[in-house]
Amino acid sequence: MPNIVPTDPAARELFDEMTRWPIFDPHSHINPHSPAARNLDEVLGYHYYTELAHSAGMPSELVAEDVAPRQRARNLSRYLDRIDNTVQYSWLTEIARTFYGFDDRINADTIDALYDRAEKSETGPAWDANVWSKTNLEACFLTNDFDDTLEGWDTSKYVPCLRTDDLVLKLHLPSTVERLKNSTGIDVVDYASLSQAIGILFERFKSKGAAACAISLPPDFAPFRATPKAAVTPIRRALHGMDLRPEEHTMIRRAVFWLLAEQCAEHKMPFDLMIGPIRGVYAAGVSGGRDLFDRRVSLHDYHELFNHFSNVTFPVSTLSPDAAGELVAYSWIFPNVVPMGYWWYSNIPAYIAADLKARLQAVPKTKQVGYYSDAYKLEFVLPKFNTFRKVLAETLADDGIRGRGWSVDRALDVAKLVILENPRRLFARG
Amino acid sequence: MPNIVPTDPAARELFDEMTRWPIFDPHSHINPHSPAARNLDEVLGYHYYTELAHSAGMPSELVAEDVAPRQRARNLSRYLDRIDNTVQYSWLTEIARTFYGFDDRINADTIDALYDRAEKSETGPAWDANVWSKTNLEACFLTNDFDDTLEGWDTSKYVPCLRTDDLVLKLHLPSTVERLKNSTGIDVVDYASLSQAIGILFERFKSKGAAACAISLPPDFAPFRATPKAAVTPIRRALHGMDLRPEEHTMIRRAVFWLLAEQCAEHKMPFDLMIGPIRGVYAAGVSGGRDLFDRRVSLHDYHELFNHFSNVTFPVSTLSPDAAGELVAYSWIFPNVVPMGYWWYSNIPAYIAADLKARLQAVPKTKQVGYYSDAYKLEFVLPKFNTFRKVLAETLADDGIRGRGWSVDRALDVAKLVILENPRRLFARG
Amino acid sequence: MPNIVPTDPAARELFDEMTRWPIFDPHSHINPHSPAARNLDEVLGYHYYTELAHSAGMPSELVAEDVAPRQRARNLSRYLDRIDNTVQYSWLTEIARTFYGFDDRINADTIDALYDRAEKSETGPAWDANVWSKTNLEACFLTNDFDDTLEGWDTSKYVPCLRTDDLVLKLHLPSTVERLKNSTGIDVVDYASLSQAIGILFERFKSKGAAACAISLPPDFAPFRATPKAAVTPIRRALHGMDLRPEEHTMIRRAVFWLLAEQCAEHKMPFDLMIGPIRGVYAAGVSGGRDLFDRRVSLHDYHELFNHFSNVTFPVSTLSPDAAGELVAYSWIFPNVVPMGYWWYSNIPAYIAADLKARLQAVPKTKQVGYYSDAYKLEFVLPKFNTFRKVLAETLADDGIRGRGWSVDRALDVAKLVILENPRRLFARG
Repeated sequence: MPNIVPTDPAARELFDEMTRWPIFDPHSHINPHSPAARNLDEVLGYHYYTELAHSAGMPSELVAEDVAPRQRARNLSRYLDRIDNTVQYSWLTEIARTFYGFDDRINADTIDALYDRAEKSETGPAWDANVWSKTNLEACFLTNDFDDTLEGWDTSKYVPCLRTDDLVLKLHLPSTVERLKNSTGIDVVDYASLSQAIGILFERFKSKGAAACAISLPPDFAPFRATPKAAVTPIRRALHGMDLRPEEHTMIRRAVFWLLAEQCAEHKMPFDLMIGPIRGVYAAGVSGGRDLFDRRVSLHDYHELFNHFSNVTFPVSTLSPDAAGELVAYSWIFPNVVPMGYWWYSNIPAYIAADLKARLQAVPKTKQVGYYSDAYKLEFVLPKFNTFRKVLAETLADDGIRGRGWSVDRALDVAKLVILENPRRLFARG
Repeated sequence: MPNIVPTDPAARELFDEMTRWPIFDPHSHINPHSPAARNLDEVLGYHYYTELAHSAGMPSELVAEDVAPRQRARNLSRYLDRIDNTVQYSWLTEIARTFYGFDDRINADTIDALYDRAEKSETGPAWDANVWSKTNLEACFLTNDFDDTLEGWDTSKYVPCLRTDDLVLKLHLPSTVERLKNSTGIDVVDYASLSQAIGILFERFKSKGAAACAISLPPDFAPFRATPKAAVTPIRRALHGMDLRPEEHTMIRRAVFWLLAEQCAEHKMPFDLMIGPIRGVYAAGVSGGRDLFDRRVSLHDYHELFNHFSNVTFPVSTLSPDAAGELVAYSWIFPNVVPMGYWWYSNIPAYIAADLKARLQAVPKTKQVGYYSDAYKLEFVLPKFNTFRKVLAETLADDGIRGRGWSVDRALDVAKLVILENPRRLFARG
Repeated sequence: MPNIVPTDPAARELFDEMTRWPIFDPHSHINPHSPAARNLDEVLGYHYYTELAHSAGMPSELVAEDVAPRQRARNLSRYLDRIDNTVQYSWLTEIARTFYGFDDRINADTIDALYDRAEKSETGPAWDANVWSKTNLEACFLTNDFDDTLEGWDTSKYVPCLRTDDLVLKLHLPSTVERLKNSTGIDVVDYASLSQAIGILFERFKSKGAAACAISLPPDFAPFRATPKAAVTPIRRALHGMDLRPEEHTMIRRAVFWLLAEQCAEHKMPFDLMIGPIRGVYAAGVSGGRDLFDRRVSLHDYHELFNHFSNVTFPVSTLSPDAAGELVAYSWIFPNVVPMGYWWYSNIPAYIAADLKARLQAVPKTKQVGYYSDAYKLEFVLPKFNTFRKVLAETLADDGIRGRGWSVDRALDVAKLVILENPRRLFARG
């Protein structure tokens, strides 16, 4: 049993039933070669802990790369009491209890004992299987670089997704172009060869069972159509490492993005849009803890895209909590816009509860993707999904069962669609 | 009894009392010549059902104009199970039960039976009266084109409102100018004659008991004052069908809008502002299901208007759910700004509940207009008002009675102001 | 006992304990020479009452400066029934009961009796002490003009804060420059002497035990760094009363603001940022009731500041309710950004409850400053803090105790940090 369960009996009944279902996780950053944590440092290395501890006063040097793993865990542990009010901390205690059988408070006094229990370096694959099984995972989507060979793991369990930030946002970097050439065998020198190379990437990903193309986009990106004609020169300049003016960068981003959408259409792949982050806003932050957002963003910037690619499904996540209402409206109108999970700064129960209630009242139940873990290590999938399951159970009990007279079965049908059957169907492969 | 009632006893007591009050509906799109639905197709034709079903996968052709009404209903019914989680669907079941005595689930198997029951083509006026009476309607405001003759119905029940979108946003279209000439007898050729024609419209509407002027405005419209001097040339160009630059369009919109506000001041008519929609964002959508918004909008753009026309009451509805907090603040400060109901994408219980709590805590109780139906057919007034009454009852029970120790009578006094007495007073005619 | 207490038993237990704690109020507008109200007019003169009554129909002349105090109170009292739904009204009844032993409804019939009871002109200092003691105040921060002599009161109780709006936003006014010269003895004529004068202000404030520098900033202010080189000419022109172009105003604001931040760094003083208001939006409003905001504002505009001054703590208040989510995110990432209280248009229980839940789930508990009174008269500190304590108690009972299985003690530890210990530590002096 998770350590946090609904106290309301109707919600508890729904929650208990949900915990028996497998988990279908349509977005994570799991490394399929080493999915579960090999030690506690890999758990505590999740940026939520390092950034929150740093925000609460921990110097970032204490968790720097060159610190030994156990010492890093010890260092961090001295700051955990400052953040033990957070939902992120609750995931940690649930991991300690569920996977390590550890029930004590986690602090400087207990960190060594917990570290010892979490040491799995010699039993890695068995431990991966153990965590997978305890989590009752059915599928876990990955975030793969475009030049990932996608080899060496069971892609029916760890499902590839083509992550394309580098292609759209960093095409002007020589390293991107080099990687693209190497991974496709195409001499990428202009718009035509770029388009060809991108096509090859999609072919390879598709053949390996990839379920989606995905990208995270800054708030100032507006995916208006760039005609090949207008984009051809800026793209050639970028591919040759030449200096670019701001409007050329804009043109390149739009053109590459459009090429990706065309490939999604051709290969019938959903295109996950993760809208909002600005990278490196807090430059001195810990690794993974530097990005923020500007909340002045609107899905209206995406309307040309949604209209043009009516056959592409766009599962959309927005970053700023106050943008949630717009996603409800756009999902309610556009058949190809699907609200997907709760991302990062919006992945807080208070925000989820407020928005989920609206989604369940206003968006067709068959087109909602309830949640994804966004996890880097397998241990996080279960506690994060349990956080969502609790909110979902409470929302359905309160608003469905008590509020609208739904039966328990009717509430569970909605829950199952949102949390399991919709992602299965929307991301069906092959 | 409505099928959805509060389960909390205190809220139930308030709700039950509210259901005994008449309904004063200060905004709808009812056709006074045929207010109630003549058949189920007219109920299911409400854009909420067609757009949600389309969003959930129904091809728009299935509900196209040239499909026979019963077939349209059948077609739509096959998709209703996909949207039966929505609040809009709950209105449908309440209509079926209240007005057609139909308690089954509504789907492809039962649609014909329900269609038969809802067939009222031969008893139209009697049915109108029946629905009016069951709804306990006191007044239902209309949305009248400026060239509506306003004849053929009882305007004390179906109260005219002058809708002015076309004048402000489409003055450059020859059809608008033609309609204006025909309906006023004025040869509208320049600013002066335009002003004169608009004055005639207001006279006519006023003489027919019109209660308000109303307009919906896109997010990029900022009603700053346009001096007649600056507007005279662009308006003349528009009236003669000449090409216009973007800044001329802006000038025309501002100038015509200002003329309308002046007429509102002169005729002591409230000016309903419905702020936010962008028309045709999803061009391939079903009829009525193509408009969305850009949430980057602020009431600060309206401050010159609110200041200048201090004697005009502006009942304001905003479209984007996240804009609600600003309306609370502007209503709290400006005597002539009145928060009015919950519009369209904000008309979802989750959003209403969150915002209504704030309105009831921060805006004088005497200047809140709780709700309007926005309905196209009379049958929707009751279930939509019941949705609001439930949220209002729950809010007052939770925040007023339990939270602040109010008596039931005190809570009911507030409810009655908000839902009945304020709209009666603010929209008093004559 | 306050008249509004939680009904939920767990919340009530937390609330009762909190009412035993002293109040540490890190922001007010109290006048230390006359902190408590000398009569009821000074209570009712709080802009919340005059602006809400005016918004509800009271002509502003009825509370103009030249009206005699008792008559002003009588005039206002006739409108109180229109705003008795508001949280602000509930503060008034709590004051009447707690400080004046008055339990009746407050209206035109009872206003004279209440006025008589509240008459304290002859017992001022004793009454100040009485209110201080009943409120159980530990410290109350002030808002001091930069040229305040800071003399004549106990600065360990009434703690000075350097308010700097005039320096940043009104440097171009001769009166500002004059005051600056007079209060520092520096002949302020250019960037160097301005910088020197500002340094002297900080020295003086610091020596008098000032706890913070504070400023309120309009939504269009973006504190990017202005190099002295670029600012030197515009600042010289401003100091000599010369005409300034808009971009020169921008440069001056940025440069002066940067100088202030540098002084905060040097003197280890927190810099309170109160972001959002636009002054005089409703020009015809009552005193204190003319300011509003444009909700299109983002903390991203502040990222250079937060990065550059990593050693300065920035307690941040935002004005627009929908901006709250961004502050949660920025406080979660930036060690030096601290979410502080609920300001003005956001200081409504509905908004506090929604946001506080998120803060408690996502921001380290050691860096939250729960609340400040923003009061002008001492009597308001207690009812305003009680409003917050109630929301805090309910949030912790619901989300902490029931939602996450916290003990009462654990919930109280969090409460005590947020409401008392964090402000004590963050604003520690000397």
